[in-house]
Amino acid sequence: MITPSFSLRIPEGDERARRVCDHCGFVDYQNPKIVVGSVVRHDGRILLCRRAIEPRAGFWTIPAGYLELNETPEAGAMREAAEEATAKIAISRLLAIYSVPRISQVQLIFRAVLEEPEALRAGPETLEWRLVRPDEIPFDDLAFPSVHWALRHDMAAEAGAPPVPFGNPEGEAGDVLPNGERLADEAL
Amino acid sequence: MITPSFSLRIPEGDERARRVCDHCGFVDYQNPKIVVGSVVRHDGRILLCRRAIEPRAGFWTIPAGYLELNETPEAGAMREAAEEATAKIAISRLLAIYSVPRISQVQLIFRAVLEEPEALRAGPETLEWRLVRPDEIPFDDLAFPSVHWALRHDMAAEAGAPPVPFGNPEGEAGDVLPNGERLADEAL
Repeated sequence: MITPSFSLRIPEGDERARRVCDHCGFVDYQNPKIVVGSVVRHDGRILLCRRAIEPRAGFWTIPAGYLELNETPEAGAMREAAEEATAKIAISRLLAIYSVPRISQVQLIFRAVLEEPEALRAGPETLEWRLVRPDEIPFDDLAFPSVHWALRHDMAAEAGAPPVPFGNPEGEAGDVLPNGERLADEAL
Repeated sequence: MITPSFSLRIPEGDERARRVCDHCGFVDYQNPKIVVGSVVRHDGRILLCRRAIEPRAGFWTIPAGYLELNETPEAGAMREAAEEATAKIAISRLLAIYSVPRISQVQLIFRAVLEEPEALRAGPETLEWRLVRPDEIPFDDLAFPSVHWALRHDMAAEAGAPPVPFGNPEGEAGDVLPNGERLADEAL
């Protein structure tokens, strides 16, 4: 085996620099990634998972992760809820579309209802799960800006906001937590 | 230079088969791609572009293409309109989110208004452009199922449908044109 080695070059017929293999010329085309997730409710409570993995291990999040090949966004959000908390969910509608261009992410976040609360278990990427009342949300210990946004937007939806998906809060790009902390580049 | 050579294998710590380089072990992680586009209106007419490139060269489409790294969906839709028809557009809102899982695409289609109609030119991927009235749309010569959907949905929006993004028409996955023709796997 040889060692992977890539250089940034503009491939023939392209206009942007891409990672090109120094050994064989393979072009590592990269595109933005789609994150799918859900705010899952049960009896007025919201499902939160404490992350077992980096980035932001130990912080709380909603079930979310990368969409896989040949998957619809709804199916991906259901799979993530199952993987992270063995949660079986019914999706009701799209809550929000967030964009985090710094890390090339588009996030599709759904509203959902928990179907079998007795089945909840922490998955391999989850330290623990909780069903919290809105006033119990650990806002100081949430993993990502978009988790803040999604929880606030879900509460607005619950309070009667029209069923138009929310976007990023005005002026926010997902770089900074509400407490001013700037996230590392690999963070969701 | 050596020749690129990949095998499908499940990398250590992963659960899905990925393309892994036989020479250096590089894992070619692939995720679904985001297509951004717009239905662009001017004086009751809609901007259509005839494709100069495969797939579906010679057929009509709306300005759309792959979102690039570090780009918001809105910025990507504006860039595509500029690239394909030198169109300067103002985005009004999200018209639809379509999913074509067979080719691992999620499409974000916006409604937009043309700002400088006199500046329209065919870009390198466009044979010609037209501003057509809705009754002039060449429905038999549209490039992709999602172009049909977007044009129908834009007309529904124009007729007063609430500003909730449309999704795939019931039961449709983007595999088949209205005339029954099944699209090849690489088609948008």
